[in-house]
Amino acid sequence: MVRTTAQRQNDTLTLLQAEEDLWIATANGNGTVHLIPLSFSWTGTKLVLATPERSRTVRNLRIADSVRVAIGPTRDVVIVEGRVEISAQDADAQLADFHAQIVGFDAREMDEPWVFISVIPERIQAWRNPAELADREIYGDGSWLR
Amino acid sequence: MVRTTAQRQNDTLTLLQAEEDLWIATANGNGTVHLIPLSFSWTGTKLVLATPERSRTVRNLRIADSVRVAIGPTRDVVIVEGRVEISAQDADAQLADFHAQIVGFDAREMDEPWVFISVIPERIQAWRNPAELADREIYGDGSWLR
Repeated sequence: MVRTTAQRQNDTLTLLQAEEDLWIATANGNGTVHLIPLSFSWTGTKLVLATPERSRTVRNLRIADSVRVAIGPTRDVVIVEGRVEISAQDADAQLADFHAQIVGFDAREMDEPWVFISVIPERIQAWRNPAELADREIYGDGSWLR
Repeated sequence: MVRTTAQRQNDTLTLLQAEEDLWIATANGNGTVHLIPLSFSWTGTKLVLATPERSRTVRNLRIADSVRVAIGPTRDVVIVEGRVEISAQDADAQLADFHAQIVGFDAREMDEPWVFISVIPERIQAWRNPAELADREIYGDGSWLR
């Protein structure tokens, strides 16, 4: 079955609300790649993650802010590429409260400094099978494709 | 529950046999990252993937052979870092036959040239929850840790 773009957009929004974790890939400037699962919250306009400031993910993002995240199982894939904003754990109380409520832990209550990583989507792709690869792009240039 | 190293190794070998897909992260030399799901076969010593020669994954690996793959769901994680070997689709008939049997399609029968990517593990980590992060390394320097 090949879903329409509208169906994929609906399914993607459902997935963004329902899923608890995502895979985040980052790289340093030398081609060395990192890949790790992190919990996330979806605010309706961006994906929010929290992780230690000294983590490889944050160090990579400070060098090269390219990020690619994957949500869902390998046969119901949502891929998000976007702009990254890193903010201190106490910079935005509303964001921190919202995130804590969704993920079930408070990033401000850790032993070491944590930061929030916001991923603002620039491109979203969604596919479940090879037949869906052709029209996988469902969001681009800041808006849902029609 | 925190599994012993031996339990994680057993679980990892089971997962490598049972799982059909993995997430593979690669990067070019400029810090731009790629992340995609691919089917794989596990030969007992390496992970074998097949993908088009002109794919971003292959182009990245020819620039920087750093690779990190993740197998399993985000709460039963196996991460493999390893050495990469890329071989032409008709270079090793035995490998190609084995791979086709496991993944259910033959990479030699595609319209465009495909290649095999072998990932020979150098480091494997396995964890299911934050409590398991401390002892996540279960394979290193070419052998299973004790």
